[in-house]
Amino acid sequence: MTKVSGFVEWLPEQRIVELQWLDEMRRTFESYGFCSIETPSVEEIEALLAKGETDHEIYIIKRLQGEEDKSEARLGLHYDLTVPLARYVAEHYNDLVFPFKRYQIQRTWRGERPQEGRYREFYQCDIDVINNNTVPLHFDAEMPAIVYEIFKRLGIESFQMHINNRKVLEGYFRGLGIEDTIPVIRIIDKLDKIGRDGVLSQLQANLGMQKDLAERCLAISNICTPDLSFRERVRELGVQSDLLEQGLDELQFVMDELRDVPTSVMLADLSIARGLDYYTGTVYEGKLAEFPAYGTICSGGRYENLTGSFINRKLPGVGISIGLTRLFAKLLAEHKIQPGPKSPTQVLVIFPDAERRQEAVQTARMLRERGLNVELYPTAIKQAQQLRYASRKGIPYVWFLPYAEKGHEVKNMSTGEQAVADPTIWLPQ
Amino acid sequence: MTKVSGFVEWLPEQRIVELQWLDEMRRTFESYGFCSIETPSVEEIEALLAKGETDHEIYIIKRLQGEEDKSEARLGLHYDLTVPLARYVAEHYNDLVFPFKRYQIQRTWRGERPQEGRYREFYQCDIDVINNNTVPLHFDAEMPAIVYEIFKRLGIESFQMHINNRKVLEGYFRGLGIEDTIPVIRIIDKLDKIGRDGVLSQLQANLGMQKDLAERCLAISNICTPDLSFRERVRELGVQSDLLEQGLDELQFVMDELRDVPTSVMLADLSIARGLDYYTGTVYEGKLAEFPAYGTICSGGRYENLTGSFINRKLPGVGISIGLTRLFAKLLAEHKIQPGPKSPTQVLVIFPDAERRQEAVQTARMLRERGLNVELYPTAIKQAQQLRYASRKGIPYVWFLPYAEKGHEVKNMSTGEQAVADPTIWLPQ
Repeated sequence: MTKVSGFVEWLPEQRIVELQWLDEMRRTFESYGFCSIETPSVEEIEALLAKGETDHEIYIIKRLQGEEDKSEARLGLHYDLTVPLARYVAEHYNDLVFPFKRYQIQRTWRGERPQEGRYREFYQCDIDVINNNTVPLHFDAEMPAIVYEIFKRLGIESFQMHINNRKVLEGYFRGLGIEDTIPVIRIIDKLDKIGRDGVLSQLQANLGMQKDLAERCLAISNICTPDLSFRERVRELGVQSDLLEQGLDELQFVMDELRDVPTSVMLADLSIARGLDYYTGTVYEGKLAEFPAYGTICSGGRYENLTGSFINRKLPGVGISIGLTRLFAKLLAEHKIQPGPKSPTQVLVIFPDAERRQEAVQTARMLRERGLNVELYPTAIKQAQQLRYASRKGIPYVWFLPYAEKGHEVKNMSTGEQAVADPTIWLPQ
Repeated sequence: MTKVSGFVEWLPEQRIVELQWLDEMRRTFESYGFCSIETPSVEEIEALLAKGETDHEIYIIKRLQGEEDKSEARLGLHYDLTVPLARYVAEHYNDLVFPFKRYQIQRTWRGERPQEGRYREFYQCDIDVINNNTVPLHFDAEMPAIVYEIFKRLGIESFQMHINNRKVLEGYFRGLGIEDTIPVIRIIDKLDKIGRDGVLSQLQANLGMQKDLAERCLAISNICTPDLSFRERVRELGVQSDLLEQGLDELQFVMDELRDVPTSVMLADLSIARGLDYYTGTVYEGKLAEFPAYGTICSGGRYENLTGSFINRKLPGVGISIGLTRLFAKLLAEHKIQPGPKSPTQVLVIFPDAERRQEAVQTARMLRERGLNVELYPTAIKQAQQLRYASRKGIPYVWFLPYAEKGHEVKNMSTGEQAVADPTIWLPQ
């Protein structure tokens, strides 16, 4: 019996790096004033389906045995952290202070066929700002800036954020005389998967468009600029509507706010649609330029009313979600991340014979009280074997108890250097 | 639609404390050289049932829609972290360095009826040491010592660890002439739930014991001492067997190793049985002396061969598990834990009008780069309202941009004091 297909688990030397990533995300989110929340893994299926999401991806849970209880709600594992957030905000509305800024780092589940980059269980790391009535557009720029800051610290160099605004697409399609824009956006969203020809033929076949109109719909998705020139490029297409202008104004504001980020990290990419209906303004898709075929590693956007199905209030928001497991697994597979040590231990205290065990325990305790991670080899076996244990676990220092005339000594396992050390003041270099 | 019954979620001011707890546990586990692992939430049902566990507690998962695939394994959510550990060690045996010391902090699920202290989803925080062939008895003492250290730091004062050894019970029952001791241990394990009379009558009714023998079986469970006197108390019962002596030796060793812990935190409690069959030596049950009816908040023990059903090797181990959610929920409900602030933000930078927003952004960035958690109020509303926001979120400092002849100023929200501050060197007190 082995680990189940589609589910990942890491070895200790990989997990220790994943923990560093999680710490960095948390630290950065908190540095911008986002508070942590966690929601149950489980929601009522009706809540999970409230957005009309792809229901075949949901895992339901049931008790293996025990009587069927009709009064019990039908339960499913959440497939993202957005629906649980909406339910949480609605449920605790009176206990929250708005603007409510939260981060949420949790596992989510989707019953998909396993394939590269698609897992059935994975970490998502979300931040969102939600407020009564309005959320200033500054936050639309803050979201990708925070993600960029995290990725920079993690050394993820080939990251690019593709930014668009749903009003640009909707306004453009309306300017072309199309009234029901949602089906068009849904097809445009498949660009990565089915290509330009696929989109053109679906626009014609599914929506009955003339070829000429379909081509004009597609034209806007050619526009991708690292600066504000997207505006001029749209003007060249000769389409106009108030909504289009509003969308371009918003996109320009966001791109302008992001001017401190190095060129070509933030792209105004007018092909980005995000299939989910609830986005109403800015939309994001983050990718690794190095691995274009791998697809999206973070995404998000602005919604005018997320909590609509849960509470009778207008609560707009903007948020972004990092697909941690997806990203981490890829960079690990591509050797872009080096595994860490197999143990968090910094110092192994060894002892020559069982009589001196208590002395070793005291030394370990002294070092531990000073904030170091310290362990003892379990038994007084040969010194060479104890050193081998340290080396195999990647423990950087080995501590020797005083012997004959000599005092405490520490051996640096990577340089091989050994020197006298005082356990009350010694620190790793 | 609200949160599902039996599942907990915390408000931000509660979650911030839970995070501190999780940090403290992790920090302490790592200080003793335990590495972190996580396993999938899901295992094959056959693996979950391999120990003959109470199967009605398992949640199975299924895809809501999509064709039934007979080739797919039947999957269930794990109900503890011990079975996943056994599977993990067996599966990654060749990649692990032994003794393997791991900690694992994850949610687990049980399909039980919700009631006080019983949740359907809860955090468990486990540490275990696993080795080839033998694990020194020192670790049996290290486990409760680590838990004590964590609880001391968290200010959980009424904690008591009840320690026994399965060999004591088995040896004692064998000394009484009973050969099949497992059913006796299972009944003795119910002492907390059904009381002494219940145990006596079940020993007679279920196992066909004479009343006199049943009473002698029960007599050992009267013994509970904070020191080594339990040995003398057992001798007074006039029962002897080699296994009993071995168990008493081991228990004495463990209690003696724990002599530095304040008296009456560690108890040799010969009533502790732990129903699960795989324990073979030391067993633990941690309780809150203040809330005796609340039952166990951490438990564990030694097993001679945990991974038996997964790999053909002898891998004994010893471990302990803290029921974080159970413990945290109780102390919160009893007001033994005070909620924290609603936000991790340390400084709110406010600005008098929209023109100075960029200046506020720069000041916030400067403070953030120095490691502080800083946010801006989203819009340039009245100062009183911005101060109110800080106060409602529990943000301790408010930052004012230079105004007229004055430089930067900081207001301490709890004292009301306001003073000049240099953003390049200022730190919270």
